[in-house]
Amino acid sequence: MVGAGLIGASVAMALTRAGVETYVRDLDPKVAHVAASLGAGSDDRLPQTPTLVVVATPPDVLGAEILKALLAYPSAVVTDVGSVKSEPLRRLREHDAPISRYVGGHPMAGSERSGPMAAAADLFDGRAWAVVTRADCDHWAVSLVQGLVAACGAVAVTMTAQEHDVAVARVSHLPHLMAALTAAQLAAAPPEHLALSGQGVRDVTRIAAGDPRLWRQILTANAGAVTALLSSLRDDLDTVVKSLAEGDSAGIEKVLAAGVAGTSLIPGKHGGPPVSLDIVTVAIPDEPGALARLFGDVGAAKVNIEDLRIDHDPARAFGLVELDVAADSADELTRALDARGWAVHR
Amino acid sequence: MVGAGLIGASVAMALTRAGVETYVRDLDPKVAHVAASLGAGSDDRLPQTPTLVVVATPPDVLGAEILKALLAYPSAVVTDVGSVKSEPLRRLREHDAPISRYVGGHPMAGSERSGPMAAAADLFDGRAWAVVTRADCDHWAVSLVQGLVAACGAVAVTMTAQEHDVAVARVSHLPHLMAALTAAQLAAAPPEHLALSGQGVRDVTRIAAGDPRLWRQILTANAGAVTALLSSLRDDLDTVVKSLAEGDSAGIEKVLAAGVAGTSLIPGKHGGPPVSLDIVTVAIPDEPGALARLFGDVGAAKVNIEDLRIDHDPARAFGLVELDVAADSADELTRALDARGWAVHR
Repeated sequence: MVGAGLIGASVAMALTRAGVETYVRDLDPKVAHVAASLGAGSDDRLPQTPTLVVVATPPDVLGAEILKALLAYPSAVVTDVGSVKSEPLRRLREHDAPISRYVGGHPMAGSERSGPMAAAADLFDGRAWAVVTRADCDHWAVSLVQGLVAACGAVAVTMTAQEHDVAVARVSHLPHLMAALTAAQLAAAPPEHLALSGQGVRDVTRIAAGDPRLWRQILTANAGAVTALLSSLRDDLDTVVKSLAEGDSAGIEKVLAAGVAGTSLIPGKHGGPPVSLDIVTVAIPDEPGALARLFGDVGAAKVNIEDLRIDHDPARAFGLVELDVAADSADELTRALDARGWAVHR
Repeated sequence: MVGAGLIGASVAMALTRAGVETYVRDLDPKVAHVAASLGAGSDDRLPQTPTLVVVATPPDVLGAEILKALLAYPSAVVTDVGSVKSEPLRRLREHDAPISRYVGGHPMAGSERSGPMAAAADLFDGRAWAVVTRADCDHWAVSLVQGLVAACGAVAVTMTAQEHDVAVARVSHLPHLMAALTAAQLAAAPPEHLALSGQGVRDVTRIAAGDPRLWRQILTANAGAVTALLSSLRDDLDTVVKSLAEGDSAGIEKVLAAGVAGTSLIPGKHGGPPVSLDIVTVAIPDEPGALARLFGDVGAAKVNIEDLRIDHDPARAFGLVELDVAADSADELTRALDARGWAVHR
């Protein structure tokens, strides 16, 4: 592991957890020692012939460090964990590096904190990890990097460097910039105004606490893709400003609705599709407290109801209640309610 | 409780939890019935002379509903939970309403979900709740609303309507719009690109899933304050676009650093100041594994280390390790490390 910061130390911890013999080094030996002491393998007696070298340095020196590793360890596979892929590759090609042993990588996990003290072996569990391949990659090198991803508990997503950079501009670099721009507006506020901060502004701005030097390097290395998205976003921003000035509420709602549509496209936390819902229908008698009793029984079954509809006025006769629940809980809920005497079907 | 959506139902649940006799109604009686069945009090036999009426309707009808409540219940104190305060107040004054019994309110908690199914009695625990007073408010009315806030487990922050609207433009309305604009950019992405979504984009865009009709009303009712912030943010955005085009990394880093500074101003989760840190200094011998042993003992003390510095190369003689920990854990950590034989001081 070349570089024992947040990501380097976390990968080394995950590999150590998986039983892989791991060595860490860093420009600052104290940082490597801290990482090793926290469970990221060993920081002394580095091997002469490592099987795999993972470069986890800041973006500005990524290309140079990958090149160094390829030349220093002529039999090793080399990968990296950098946030931008085309720029280092361009530098490697310029130097005519032996790149068949290099396969790019990028784990989609991190923290607004930096350094090995913030590292954790489980940082990548269930997360996506881009594996950036090329036609001129050795097959065994790709397999080894896929093995690294699996050993860290992550899910490999294979793509080209260019695809990767366009994708992360949208799902990582743009969100980071927007978080920073939103947080920057807090600076001019009187402190008593910030007392009204709720969870919303905390979530929107959390990642803006990330290291500005690191993020400056990431953004400049992916300037083209980021700028294209910023231009598109600025058009929407102008629409909002114009709509607010003209009292055009339809214009504002259109932008807000596009936002809702965007959030629904983000896959589930562990790389799967967004949670799909199933409907469980229950007949409830016209008795005081019937719905409360149903909620009690649903709660006892430990199933979460996402939403519900009641199909006629509960004040009259029998009513049908449609419960929206996660598809994988629907069977369980149906059985549990049936066992408690409810007339239930899916 | 007038309105049994997310906030209305949650306030009613919190009051019921606190032992307050609570009644809910809603334009849609089914919604009120669901809320009541979930523990938000009763939805029938509403009292003729309530002590307190809480108006929890969408912003567009807020002024009208507050007015109705003031006229229908001539002895009741009336408050609301609306996101914008000046606009409803203006309408009340226009109608020459008996507003000495009206005190505005705004709990700074919510969810991207809507309706009583997403409600919870603990939604406001430890959260800020703006209490919007005026010179012409009855003292007992202000006290009663402060009692409501306390009963819901929240922390009252008193301010004027104008101050409130400027404050929430910054800590709520601008973050919501930025989340929506960022999420809107996801729509054009190929699905395989979105597979790289990590926690960052999820956090930045979470609130963008909120009801567009509700948020359109909030933003238009606070257009002036929101527009001023949008203009300022757009200037920063233009700086970023220009800096990326010119390869001016100092310009980008300046905006990112302003973001970091902004995040550091957000008070701690429960309305307190940002967590303050204290330093615990430990002497460690020059032995293999000494730092690892120290980390083990810190872990056993269940204290979280935010950061650390080692004051000379760990390869030589004794070293001093400075541990940054939350101020209220420093005593505990000092005692725990002392008990395990470390030379430790604060």
